[in-house]
Amino acid sequence: MAGEAGTQRVALCLEYEGSGFSGWQAQKATSLATVQETLEAALSRVAGAAVSTVCAGRTDAGVHASAQVVHFDVSVRRPERAWVFGGNALTGPAVAIQWAREVSGDFHARFSAEARTYRYLVLNRSQRTAWMAGRCLHERVSLDDAAMHLAAQALIGEHDFSAFRGAGCQSKTPMRRVETIAVRRIGEFVCIDVRANAFLLHMVRNIVGSLLRVGRGEEGAYWIGELLQARDRRRGGATAPPGGLYLAGVSYGAQWGLPPLPPAPYAAAL
Amino acid sequence: MAGEAGTQRVALCLEYEGSGFSGWQAQKATSLATVQETLEAALSRVAGAAVSTVCAGRTDAGVHASAQVVHFDVSVRRPERAWVFGGNALTGPAVAIQWAREVSGDFHARFSAEARTYRYLVLNRSQRTAWMAGRCLHERVSLDDAAMHLAAQALIGEHDFSAFRGAGCQSKTPMRRVETIAVRRIGEFVCIDVRANAFLLHMVRNIVGSLLRVGRGEEGAYWIGELLQARDRRRGGATAPPGGLYLAGVSYGAQWGLPPLPPAPYAAAL
Repeated sequence: MAGEAGTQRVALCLEYEGSGFSGWQAQKATSLATVQETLEAALSRVAGAAVSTVCAGRTDAGVHASAQVVHFDVSVRRPERAWVFGGNALTGPAVAIQWAREVSGDFHARFSAEARTYRYLVLNRSQRTAWMAGRCLHERVSLDDAAMHLAAQALIGEHDFSAFRGAGCQSKTPMRRVETIAVRRIGEFVCIDVRANAFLLHMVRNIVGSLLRVGRGEEGAYWIGELLQARDRRRGGATAPPGGLYLAGVSYGAQWGLPPLPPAPYAAAL
Repeated sequence: MAGEAGTQRVALCLEYEGSGFSGWQAQKATSLATVQETLEAALSRVAGAAVSTVCAGRTDAGVHASAQVVHFDVSVRRPERAWVFGGNALTGPAVAIQWAREVSGDFHARFSAEARTYRYLVLNRSQRTAWMAGRCLHERVSLDDAAMHLAAQALIGEHDFSAFRGAGCQSKTPMRRVETIAVRRIGEFVCIDVRANAFLLHMVRNIVGSLLRVGRGEEGAYWIGELLQARDRRRGGATAPPGGLYLAGVSYGAQWGLPPLPPAPYAAAL
């Protein structure tokens, strides 16, 4: 409700199926659209003027989001529902805006975020399922989820996560603070939820790739802690594929007055 | 285990996400592959010879299946798991074979089937979801699922279903026997399950289109029975889109010794 005369900042929560996109933001010329381009094209038509968005967490090509949060500034006023309904009429089926909320000008989708939560889904059964194609990793070997969970606890706290840092990561520091990490078997899935203040490039996918080695019995549960200490990416497991990864939540202080986020993907199914 | 010297008949259960296919069987030249073509190409490579399949229920373009059953005859013997694992390595992500079983030569996927069950999913909430794009009908108006269920009970039994018969249906008779029909709200979905001995062209989608008029309050619950009696397709609701429809089960006698079918789609989520 700020900025009578000037611009209005709007926060928006969206869900996307990332299979058909080359990620949130184009890193180089690709044939696929990015989520950001798709969203901005829709919002610009609703606004009747160019809209630029800033997101909480840039996702890679093929990665999904059940709760990405963005903000943008506009000089025109629209009812909050116009951003949602108008936007959804224009974004196409793979992007679905869940809510929009006018916020004060100091809110920043990226810098105001206190933590991000990612979910990784592993379908752990003999055969693939057509419903989850591109939306999970398929692992036939029965995983020891209890060992994976135990091993993962070594990552909690503030650490140098160089062992799980993707090549090309542009962060100034390899330090991150993992607040919680949980590995649970729910139905036919093994679900890995990681909450941290922020993440390095491919950090969740590299953690998952190494946890899978523990889950298959190739390494003991102690190995993840050793890997962390060694700070050497080359010793870790292969990077898990992007399709199993979901940006599942972004935490902001109550002072911003944002609506609740949608539940993590397949929460009901899991 | 029949046909030592001759051919072996194999039954196979598969799941498919129909969005990218022009239906089970090509009706006319299209740019998209059919599910049948995709499956037969994979099985033919496993067999090392051309394989032709017969299915329990031909699905239209964009319709899915959680439990389609087919049979085929081969002169080569393969372990049952070779059809499953080998087939799944070749069908692509949208088709997933669930099991294969050698059966006697009198089993016929279509003619031995005693009943088929279709499920139709309606997402009944304000905004779309990216996860179910092409896999449900999105209806914003809050549906009266109790009225829909009550109305639907008029369809149970053996009737002339001309009121719900699609143009171009080639069946010799409009008579079908609906065994059960249930409309239930589960989470954010309204789910319509119909079990019948067989179905006319577009019969489920036409029933759903008419039930939606009841659900939105445009017609009373009595109207579905009247529609059935009138046998006039022009008086019914619009045909519901294919993406919400799933072939969710085919019933065979216990004498065939088939494994159990997978659960209906999103059973856990719903």
